[in-house]
Amino acid sequence: MGMVGGGRGAFIGAVHRIAAAIDGQIELVCGAFSSDPQRSRESGADFFLPADRCYGTFQEMIAAEKARPASERMDFISIVTPNHMHFPPAKMALENGFHVLSDKPATFNLAEAKALAAIVKKSGLLYGLTHNYTGYPLVKEARHLVASGRFGTIRKVVVEYPQGWLATRLEASGQKQAAWRTDPKRSGAAGCIGDIGTHAENLAEYITGLEIKELAADLTAFVKGRKLDDDGNVLLRFKGGAKGVLHASQISVGEENNLNIRVYGEKGGLEWHQREPNTLVLKWPDQPMQVYRTANGYLSPAALAAGRTPPAHPEGYLEAFANVYKNFAATIRARQEKRKPTAIENDYPKITDGIRGMAFIEAVVASSKKNAAWTKLAV
Amino acid sequence: MGMVGGGRGAFIGAVHRIAAAIDGQIELVCGAFSSDPQRSRESGADFFLPADRCYGTFQEMIAAEKARPASERMDFISIVTPNHMHFPPAKMALENGFHVLSDKPATFNLAEAKALAAIVKKSGLLYGLTHNYTGYPLVKEARHLVASGRFGTIRKVVVEYPQGWLATRLEASGQKQAAWRTDPKRSGAAGCIGDIGTHAENLAEYITGLEIKELAADLTAFVKGRKLDDDGNVLLRFKGGAKGVLHASQISVGEENNLNIRVYGEKGGLEWHQREPNTLVLKWPDQPMQVYRTANGYLSPAALAAGRTPPAHPEGYLEAFANVYKNFAATIRARQEKRKPTAIENDYPKITDGIRGMAFIEAVVASSKKNAAWTKLAV
Amino acid sequence: MGMVGGGRGAFIGAVHRIAAAIDGQIELVCGAFSSDPQRSRESGADFFLPADRCYGTFQEMIAAEKARPASERMDFISIVTPNHMHFPPAKMALENGFHVLSDKPATFNLAEAKALAAIVKKSGLLYGLTHNYTGYPLVKEARHLVASGRFGTIRKVVVEYPQGWLATRLEASGQKQAAWRTDPKRSGAAGCIGDIGTHAENLAEYITGLEIKELAADLTAFVKGRKLDDDGNVLLRFKGGAKGVLHASQISVGEENNLNIRVYGEKGGLEWHQREPNTLVLKWPDQPMQVYRTANGYLSPAALAAGRTPPAHPEGYLEAFANVYKNFAATIRARQEKRKPTAIENDYPKITDGIRGMAFIEAVVASSKKNAAWTKLAV
Amino acid sequence: MGMVGGGRGAFIGAVHRIAAAIDGQIELVCGAFSSDPQRSRESGADFFLPADRCYGTFQEMIAAEKARPASERMDFISIVTPNHMHFPPAKMALENGFHVLSDKPATFNLAEAKALAAIVKKSGLLYGLTHNYTGYPLVKEARHLVASGRFGTIRKVVVEYPQGWLATRLEASGQKQAAWRTDPKRSGAAGCIGDIGTHAENLAEYITGLEIKELAADLTAFVKGRKLDDDGNVLLRFKGGAKGVLHASQISVGEENNLNIRVYGEKGGLEWHQREPNTLVLKWPDQPMQVYRTANGYLSPAALAAGRTPPAHPEGYLEAFANVYKNFAATIRARQEKRKPTAIENDYPKITDGIRGMAFIEAVVASSKKNAAWTKLAV
Repeated sequence: MGMVGGGRGAFIGAVHRIAAAIDGQIELVCGAFSSDPQRSRESGADFFLPADRCYGTFQEMIAAEKARPASERMDFISIVTPNHMHFPPAKMALENGFHVLSDKPATFNLAEAKALAAIVKKSGLLYGLTHNYTGYPLVKEARHLVASGRFGTIRKVVVEYPQGWLATRLEASGQKQAAWRTDPKRSGAAGCIGDIGTHAENLAEYITGLEIKELAADLTAFVKGRKLDDDGNVLLRFKGGAKGVLHASQISVGEENNLNIRVYGEKGGLEWHQREPNTLVLKWPDQPMQVYRTANGYLSPAALAAGRTPPAHPEGYLEAFANVYKNFAATIRARQEKRKPTAIENDYPKITDGIRGMAFIEAVVASSKKNAAWTKLAV
Repeated sequence: MGMVGGGRGAFIGAVHRIAAAIDGQIELVCGAFSSDPQRSRESGADFFLPADRCYGTFQEMIAAEKARPASERMDFISIVTPNHMHFPPAKMALENGFHVLSDKPATFNLAEAKALAAIVKKSGLLYGLTHNYTGYPLVKEARHLVASGRFGTIRKVVVEYPQGWLATRLEASGQKQAAWRTDPKRSGAAGCIGDIGTHAENLAEYITGLEIKELAADLTAFVKGRKLDDDGNVLLRFKGGAKGVLHASQISVGEENNLNIRVYGEKGGLEWHQREPNTLVLKWPDQPMQVYRTANGYLSPAALAAGRTPPAHPEGYLEAFANVYKNFAATIRARQEKRKPTAIENDYPKITDGIRGMAFIEAVVASSKKNAAWTKLAV
Repeated sequence: MGMVGGGRGAFIGAVHRIAAAIDGQIELVCGAFSSDPQRSRESGADFFLPADRCYGTFQEMIAAEKARPASERMDFISIVTPNHMHFPPAKMALENGFHVLSDKPATFNLAEAKALAAIVKKSGLLYGLTHNYTGYPLVKEARHLVASGRFGTIRKVVVEYPQGWLATRLEASGQKQAAWRTDPKRSGAAGCIGDIGTHAENLAEYITGLEIKELAADLTAFVKGRKLDDDGNVLLRFKGGAKGVLHASQISVGEENNLNIRVYGEKGGLEWHQREPNTLVLKWPDQPMQVYRTANGYLSPAALAAGRTPPAHPEGYLEAFANVYKNFAATIRARQEKRKPTAIENDYPKITDGIRGMAFIEAVVASSKKNAAWTKLAV
Repeated sequence: MGMVGGGRGAFIGAVHRIAAAIDGQIELVCGAFSSDPQRSRESGADFFLPADRCYGTFQEMIAAEKARPASERMDFISIVTPNHMHFPPAKMALENGFHVLSDKPATFNLAEAKALAAIVKKSGLLYGLTHNYTGYPLVKEARHLVASGRFGTIRKVVVEYPQGWLATRLEASGQKQAAWRTDPKRSGAAGCIGDIGTHAENLAEYITGLEIKELAADLTAFVKGRKLDDDGNVLLRFKGGAKGVLHASQISVGEENNLNIRVYGEKGGLEWHQREPNTLVLKWPDQPMQVYRTANGYLSPAALAAGRTPPAHPEGYLEAFANVYKNFAATIRARQEKRKPTAIENDYPKITDGIRGMAFIEAVVASSKKNAAWTKLAV
């Protein structure tokens, strides 16, 4: 694996490296960790990389790695840069024969996402997207249970992603994470709703298997001087008739990363919270609630495969993130072994998820500009 | 106290009687428990009432009680009938010199509520409304904390009231509670949103002290053949700039009476759930969360006055309900003692709350009919 | 009902009055609320009692009430005095034809309890004891589930009652509740373990249906100058082979009244906490945990009968307490109606529970004095 | 790092490898994964190791690695075998110049542990023990808070480790984990109390900084035919006067790995559960409870250093385990860099913890054999 971005001081780059390392199946062999070559080399040294594989730019990295013998070059690149820098390295890597695993959102806007989908298709290579919350074992169980029909037709979905860290104008202090996320040039058309609202959207669609048909959104920038939304409330209508509510916030003071979802069907419902990710609650009309816990024998194969320890050894965010890497790597290996990946191996977010995410952002922004008018999520 | 409605088999009548009895300050002395005189007498006998004070109609009761010597007649009536029967007894009681404590909603529609407000004003008598959830000690603490400014200006409110008991067409089975709640002639313009959505609306306004300015609502009747909504999702905008989400449901399978609220201000936030009503969580940007519990010395006088036991002897729904009765009775007594009620005594829902509730229902229904167009909550 | 003790300022007297009033089946008709006749009358006036039924002593009350016509006298007395004053009024009431409902512990020591049992037997009257925690609906469900055999033979019991309110020498401040509880002359041989340890003991035996055979106890008075234990840790052995741990504390700072129990059998287990009394968790070796909630149709008749509201309208301590009164009153009524009480009516703590409680206290104190030597619980 | 044990099918070996890999600071370079050389090589191949560094025995591995140039040999061995095989490789490694990180318990019995301590001392090398639960960020915070004096003198400790997986005679089915844990020849003098009771003991001493002085223990083998205890209840007395309760169980059906602890001092208390390891609750006599969460700025440096992600990205068991590896590796590196390790680097369990663990086991077993007589924990 070669990494684009993620040098010293970056948050998500470190997460990606841990996620890649955790199962001992992926080795970081090179990187363009920073646009400053000196800084890139220093970052690489932190990971025990030789200086000649710490590149100053992704262009340089892709070219140099391609020039190496096939058995000695990286297999795929991992993109961990801010949003506006997702598309260029993804495009170039695919066009030069490297698989791509990218941080989300896939691209800066919907048009780019569609362009990228075409490139992925043409290349015949693999493209993965770290919508990491779908990596939790019990999120996979939730998806399995909905698909199994145990809840009947789904009627209602409530999905939330409240955070509080941008309740003040943190970006004005020079905090790097806040700076790019609140900057339209680097973040895109949306702030909060793009950064974390898309995770909520992806989670809802992943678990329910339903597609959002249209939405009505009310975005707000509560913090004075901020150009992008820091809070958004959205009414949802799904294909097939389910309704829902999605809200995301970065000004909900005191909330950490409190992603959570509730789904109700005709015959039962479920509830899951990232805060306590090893618990999934099932609700029934006339029976006691059931509390599913990770790693127990009653879970589906997909949920069991996503765990690494016995029951009640709590696993968390890094392991969920690692599951995206694990399945992506397993799918690459399946290809190397000239076999079809299993359903479990093939379970990682793809460019189609990326396109839906960008379409969601654009629909939300368009709806909000029209005072929350219903707007189609047009892919 | 004389009761209108609440005969054998009624649910809410029993709750009112317990709430009235709990503090030993209110005595049930008569009732028109049922439109069937025989049944009314039988019900009254269950409560050890003499047959001559068990009336066949509220008209008969009001007339007969008025004819008794002042010291031997009921002080107020408690109305516990279905919605369409709230206005007539309230009007007649007020016009004949009796205070009124009514189950919510105040009336069948907004016009009636406004008419009732005029009658209350003219009568100079007291009118109370059992928006009972505001009776919880920690709801009062939440209101106190917001008013104290500790959270700064409020930005966001999320209030929910999910239930699941109407996920099937229970009304078709003859279940009495389901039957009138789903019948437009007895329930009014709304089903779920009128029955429990108004509790969520009232709770949000009570705690934040903010008024809903406009809303956009998406109502659904998920169960085939049902005429009124059984689920509603609503975007809120408050006077002063706060935004919010309110959703209520009677098809969220497996949910009991899961009323809950989260409020976020510039400097802090709070979270409260009816399911665990003796706990209030406060959230801060850079300090640990705080868990407030009932009956502790650090609470405000209003919250302490609303409790009856020491810390961690959990109190519940009946005690909260009783607090509406307690404060209403204390205000009547203050009047009898020719003194001004204290702020704590005077803390019970009034006709103004009733008007706002009806205006909320009408705005939600109007918005939903216009495909969730923004609609003013016009009082 | 006539009350002994419970005048102004008393805590538990108010709880008893609410518990008696809640169902509208019991009327407070007289009382000896205080040994100061003036204070007794003033207290009675708070409850709207006529002055001539507010007595200066329980002796006076029992004599005067007995002198009234049978249809106008109290049916039973409720004893809410400190421990050393439980036996005398109970004895006199029984000997004069009145049923007795007493606060726990039954008496000052085991010898008194045995004497009282003989008096109860001789009188043919009813004697009840407010081990109120057994009144919770889900405690009754827990007992039902164990008795049903769903968990198989019980192997292990963990029961706890931590409080923190006596972590400092509160009694030195003149606080009335602390003063008598820490005074060997009024409290008895034990402090914490008598006051709340007995509740834990009673709860464990009630739910499991097992009897403690022997125990090894380590009592401590952590607060300097305190004569009675304020903390106790106890190893338990039950008849039939189950083992257990019981600990109670009044110096566990920050704990409220955190009574809780876990029971494990060969095939399943359960967990219940007073803090959230409307939830009972069932645990299974190879199935998801189940969360039982009050008032749902899947509960046993005893648990359903102990509730007053629909699911998720939380009920609490006062309602549980009221269930002791309700069943005691129903059993009196059954006797008046010359019929056998039902199993549900007859479900309230009796003198046998009182004897076991006193035997528990004496065994714990004896064991602790012998450095935690195993000591039989000898009834 | 070279690994002893942990071949295909082993549970704890995989955990150690993930823990070692997570931070990218430790590389698995060789192993004696199985006593079967063929199996050892196959296991090594799973981790991409060359065949010539997959050894058949630890003796072979230590000898061969020692023969390699210093810059190309392993730095330390990681021992992940059953208990009876901890001492021999540790001894040989230390005597041949390799640091040792061992799974717990340190040795088979106390005598071996003392012998090992002497060898460690003589060697001048580092010895670490994976009492992994002390690696949780909030366990470190708890220790910090107690040490800071915020709770005052500690009075009471309640520590529990219930599991349910051995509620039936699983060992008879050939399940490998169950087999050696219930076999006196491989597990040692104790079953449950050695396997998990020692974790509880270590956690209590780590957090409080107090040493257990004496204990009274009641061990039971509930499952017929089992030779070692599967449940134990223990009264604790600490040096300095604190008292406590420790219980561990492998027959508490439905419990997963529910390690938890409560500590109460004169001025405050704390509660932590492995089930929700990112939450630490602080309790105060007259203030609201506080909920500490991982990764927040208000935590101590040690707790912050033990986290890898921002607030509310839950971390779990593997990360806590990794913290033992991280600090052990950092201390090795400090030595290589000829500097003193920082307090944070030096925070990992050592041979002294190993000795206390073995002394605890022997004291518990001795006490239980004498019917729970008080027994000194003699180191």
